[in-house]
Amino acid sequence: MNHPLRLNEDRLFPSDPVQRDIARRLYYEVRALPIISPHGHTDPQWFADNGSFPDPSALLIIPDHYVYRMLYSQGISLESLGVPRTDGGAVEKDPRKIWRLFAQNWYLFRGTPTYMWFNHVFYDVFGIREKLTPESADRIYDHIADCLSRPEFLPRTLYERFNIEVLSTTESPLDPLTHHRKLRDSGWKGRIVPTYRPDPVADPEFPGFVQNVQQLGKITGQDIGTWSGYLQALADRRRFFSSLGATATDHGHISAATLDLPRARCEALLGKALSGNITPGEAQEFRGQMLTEMAQMSIEDGLVMQIHPGAYRDHNPSVFSRFGRDKGADIPMRTDYVHDLKPLLDRFGNEKRLSIILFTLDETTYSRELAPLAGHYPALKLGPAWWFYDSPEGMRLYRERITETAGFYNTVGFNDDTRAFPSIPARHDVARRVDCSFLARLVAEHRLDEDEAREVAIDLAYKLSKSAYRL
Amino acid sequence: MNHPLRLNEDRLFPSDPVQRDIARRLYYEVRALPIISPHGHTDPQWFADNGSFPDPSALLIIPDHYVYRMLYSQGISLESLGVPRTDGGAVEKDPRKIWRLFAQNWYLFRGTPTYMWFNHVFYDVFGIREKLTPESADRIYDHIADCLSRPEFLPRTLYERFNIEVLSTTESPLDPLTHHRKLRDSGWKGRIVPTYRPDPVADPEFPGFVQNVQQLGKITGQDIGTWSGYLQALADRRRFFSSLGATATDHGHISAATLDLPRARCEALLGKALSGNITPGEAQEFRGQMLTEMAQMSIEDGLVMQIHPGAYRDHNPSVFSRFGRDKGADIPMRTDYVHDLKPLLDRFGNEKRLSIILFTLDETTYSRELAPLAGHYPALKLGPAWWFYDSPEGMRLYRERITETAGFYNTVGFNDDTRAFPSIPARHDVARRVDCSFLARLVAEHRLDEDEAREVAIDLAYKLSKSAYRL
Amino acid sequence: MNHPLRLNEDRLFPSDPVQRDIARRLYYEVRALPIISPHGHTDPQWFADNGSFPDPSALLIIPDHYVYRMLYSQGISLESLGVPRTDGGAVEKDPRKIWRLFAQNWYLFRGTPTYMWFNHVFYDVFGIREKLTPESADRIYDHIADCLSRPEFLPRTLYERFNIEVLSTTESPLDPLTHHRKLRDSGWKGRIVPTYRPDPVADPEFPGFVQNVQQLGKITGQDIGTWSGYLQALADRRRFFSSLGATATDHGHISAATLDLPRARCEALLGKALSGNITPGEAQEFRGQMLTEMAQMSIEDGLVMQIHPGAYRDHNPSVFSRFGRDKGADIPMRTDYVHDLKPLLDRFGNEKRLSIILFTLDETTYSRELAPLAGHYPALKLGPAWWFYDSPEGMRLYRERITETAGFYNTVGFNDDTRAFPSIPARHDVARRVDCSFLARLVAEHRLDEDEAREVAIDLAYKLSKSAYRL
Repeated sequence: MNHPLRLNEDRLFPSDPVQRDIARRLYYEVRALPIISPHGHTDPQWFADNGSFPDPSALLIIPDHYVYRMLYSQGISLESLGVPRTDGGAVEKDPRKIWRLFAQNWYLFRGTPTYMWFNHVFYDVFGIREKLTPESADRIYDHIADCLSRPEFLPRTLYERFNIEVLSTTESPLDPLTHHRKLRDSGWKGRIVPTYRPDPVADPEFPGFVQNVQQLGKITGQDIGTWSGYLQALADRRRFFSSLGATATDHGHISAATLDLPRARCEALLGKALSGNITPGEAQEFRGQMLTEMAQMSIEDGLVMQIHPGAYRDHNPSVFSRFGRDKGADIPMRTDYVHDLKPLLDRFGNEKRLSIILFTLDETTYSRELAPLAGHYPALKLGPAWWFYDSPEGMRLYRERITETAGFYNTVGFNDDTRAFPSIPARHDVARRVDCSFLARLVAEHRLDEDEAREVAIDLAYKLSKSAYRL
Repeated sequence: MNHPLRLNEDRLFPSDPVQRDIARRLYYEVRALPIISPHGHTDPQWFADNGSFPDPSALLIIPDHYVYRMLYSQGISLESLGVPRTDGGAVEKDPRKIWRLFAQNWYLFRGTPTYMWFNHVFYDVFGIREKLTPESADRIYDHIADCLSRPEFLPRTLYERFNIEVLSTTESPLDPLTHHRKLRDSGWKGRIVPTYRPDPVADPEFPGFVQNVQQLGKITGQDIGTWSGYLQALADRRRFFSSLGATATDHGHISAATLDLPRARCEALLGKALSGNITPGEAQEFRGQMLTEMAQMSIEDGLVMQIHPGAYRDHNPSVFSRFGRDKGADIPMRTDYVHDLKPLLDRFGNEKRLSIILFTLDETTYSRELAPLAGHYPALKLGPAWWFYDSPEGMRLYRERITETAGFYNTVGFNDDTRAFPSIPARHDVARRVDCSFLARLVAEHRLDEDEAREVAIDLAYKLSKSAYRL
Repeated sequence: MNHPLRLNEDRLFPSDPVQRDIARRLYYEVRALPIISPHGHTDPQWFADNGSFPDPSALLIIPDHYVYRMLYSQGISLESLGVPRTDGGAVEKDPRKIWRLFAQNWYLFRGTPTYMWFNHVFYDVFGIREKLTPESADRIYDHIADCLSRPEFLPRTLYERFNIEVLSTTESPLDPLTHHRKLRDSGWKGRIVPTYRPDPVADPEFPGFVQNVQQLGKITGQDIGTWSGYLQALADRRRFFSSLGATATDHGHISAATLDLPRARCEALLGKALSGNITPGEAQEFRGQMLTEMAQMSIEDGLVMQIHPGAYRDHNPSVFSRFGRDKGADIPMRTDYVHDLKPLLDRFGNEKRLSIILFTLDETTYSRELAPLAGHYPALKLGPAWWFYDSPEGMRLYRERITETAGFYNTVGFNDDTRAFPSIPARHDVARRVDCSFLARLVAEHRLDEDEAREVAIDLAYKLSKSAYRL
């Protein structure tokens, strides 16, 4: 074992001794707080069935787009990483070979959050004490594979060991929530709640939109051919999600565009959408109107509304056609909030019952648009640094550019937004450490007293996500 | 007194001992320099009449949009904060109740510049030694109210105590400058100068534009129905402002768009504007042309020209209709300078007699547009970090992103831009500390020698604003 | 000698002792590595003829747009700095007077990279031990002039002393590469290679485009009136450049727009371009198509492709008409990569044989567009912080905003991009120090182990540029 793996107790803290000591003390207050995970993409079936996770590659590599986007950028084919092809074509099936390929290229991740998350998972979840290298690859593979076969590594046991208090998953309104029902009926004390993500039935450009909406009509018994019936069907499913614990919706739009159209126009757009003859401009109108409709429903049923705009999805048509969606080819775009959100805000921005949590992939909007908007409108709060910015530098920039205008209390704590279940503690730990480091700098520069910072640290690590998501 | 209020001598300095010691030494050179306040919104009547300030809430809360925007964002109504309604409707009238509400929510401001400014004002201006809490709210209220009744807290006495050398206010060309004349005639040694802000008569979309221009004609005796008469009227009022000490104009446009149109088009636009039948596009043309006209006048009369673009004013129609302008609902927008300023620069950019000071609400333009423009054109200088960015992180980013291309000498020192008179020393102190900290880092990293940094610190704190504003 | 000039051994390192010690150790590993300069604008004739450099002003001031843009911005005329006028009009001819003017205004450069580069050149290249001041100006002038007359300061000797391993110049496809041929035939061991920059024959708006393309036809014997002949002519010249050592092309477009047009449209655009009757929109189409064509050729001949978009060239028409191109009046613009590069990427983005190195003048694209694109597409890599951002703060921001998504291995090491030959060691030294400082922070915050950081430091300083440019 030539290359010991260590997880330094002071990682991510400033190296300046004054700041580091404060950061340590703040972190001491939050490190053991339960994890609130109000937005993510884990599979509820894991917890419903509580079966063993498969091999190390299937758990840690094949589903993780952070991992294979980097490897792909360096000329490694997705086939060789075992990513399934949409046409069922041949891909690598030997998980050990995939693991070795990953280990050979592990140095590419230096300086990325993936590097920290994996090392945390190796060290803390699996008890590994040597670094991943081409030489150690097989030993580590065998060690993880052995762990996964043991009861301590079953999903529910890990959930409890991770000290998770609540874990949100994300589902289409068409989802029967079978696993959530099974979980509810199981008597297990873990709290896994669904999140209502209506993109498949609210975005006319979503693959299969027409069939999706027809199915929505079938499930709910509503006449989805009329605007009121369509909205009622969506509201029915929201109620169903609520009944299984959902407290939030999620909306993954291309832009933050919203509209507040007259009823006749809405009817016309629905007609076009359902006929399959809708132009891109009309589809944009439809989506914009739907955000406003969803805000209206949130006022009625109390579901918190999350808006995640700004990704150019499936930018690489060759990867998309061979491997489908979510394969690391989504690219952030410049995003406008000042004009795009105005129609919705004109109608509902002053509503205290409404809580909209905004995310961005355009860091330039933090200080220019998002903090000023959230620092004024009662209905708006800011989600944490997201996706490409779920990282030490990304989180630090977020606090530096948002806090002076929006404060801490227009933000909502951390989201891990992950399907990589074993990494959830690592991700929350990074967020807690970075927030404590930011607060430590404020204290060290006498911009905040340490007792105030301690309260804020606990709010950021635990209380704000619980209250913002009404959990 | 359970929560002592302290104002640490090292606040805002880096905690690294090497940098902190340099910052201390640099700050020692500038801390006692007189305050030059070349851009702000204090009321000249305070100094002309020298009457007592009213109660603590009327002085510190009700007029401060930084304060009530944050409180409003958390669901606190503007009525309950005593902000007057445009329809004269009922709002809270008891200043002590307003103060208590503020105190209960004071924690919301943690990490914001308002937090530092208020604590500085409490400690240094009013001699308070305990933190504002719900429990201490009444004691602090009574203490400030008592201060305000004493002669040491009269406006002129505070002006002198604050060591202000010159204080600029901001007025419409229609303003008779009664208070400035009274001040001139009073024999008081304080120097309060007006600034010429022509938006009400130069922006066809300004409320009351037509009547404003008609009044301008009446005041000056010029025929404002012709382009030359209109310009002459504006020039006359500039001369009047100059005669009472003005050295600068200020222009608060939506964008930085400028134009250099043929005379016939100008005449036509004026006709449309005065008829009240001007399209938004034509109004934009009109404003763009007016910046170029104002630059021409500045070459002739020597007034420094300030351009403050990029705010979406009154973004919240509900707040606007109930409370009017400047109620915390202005939101920054993406701003372009490269194309928008070109018509003006093509004509006057190489003019050494002209001095245009540019501001921005779009921090992305610092390194991309503003520093390269100001680092080339003789007519351009850069105003300090403004409004939402008048803050430690905002100022630090400003220096980090501007200095390497524009240097220090294409910037113009600090502006407090405030109507909150008691906070003026606090705001200048923050700027001096942040600039000294930035310089200390350059020295500690051996990018500048300390004797050079000392000269620069004095220039940034005092000399540059005096020379840039021709004071 | 009242003001000693020093070059601190720890310059640009963090002042925090923990980080500084790590930075020192990392820098120790890279400080003496040979210089790879894969992109620049030195004159190959210097090395081919190996004659003495002229006087200090002709070497250091008159050709350096970083220098005279700053001086010009403060009202100093280009004539007084000896910058030649296009009309041959009178400009200052006395190099000593130019030097004195520079010395009087040297303080303007405080905080800029020019300040560090010049002090490094003074100290290290010319052995000067006093600061440049108005008082020392003549002494320093005489000292440098004396150096330049000595054989140790001949171009080839300096090249060797600077420990340069390879130096790329930049040429038009029309360039006969006389000096490169002379160098090849000279037996001198220095490696000076050309770079193929086709803007003069690939941009219909380039001055003299029609004549340039006609000359291209003449040189190659191809029928440039047809699309295939035109492309063949360009390919022929690429082969010629390769034969003299070129490994890369360079493309200085206004935007990053690319297109993949049908053949008929290409023919039509060429016809319009050669007739001189091409609209701005069509010229943009032409340039966009040419990037895709060049990518195709790069796949065939293996030349690495550099794209440098985003400068508004010659923003100041008055300076342009009197002094011509490249006179400090180029201003960065907002740049889009997500949509603009898509046509090219759709066709070639997954090509492992292709290597496109992207640069930007819009720092907001680092984390939002460039890192996500380069962190996915096999054909893309990211060039270093460029031009206005070739500076300590610029490089630091680059690493902070790019590394977490793209890692280190989708970047390509440093480019000096300079015509200021004596400053080449200074510029590479700054890059090495800033990269080591960034890595030191990662190590100090336990985000990377020091042995890993050491490998990365060597890669960034030497190996990556060598491999990325196929040198």
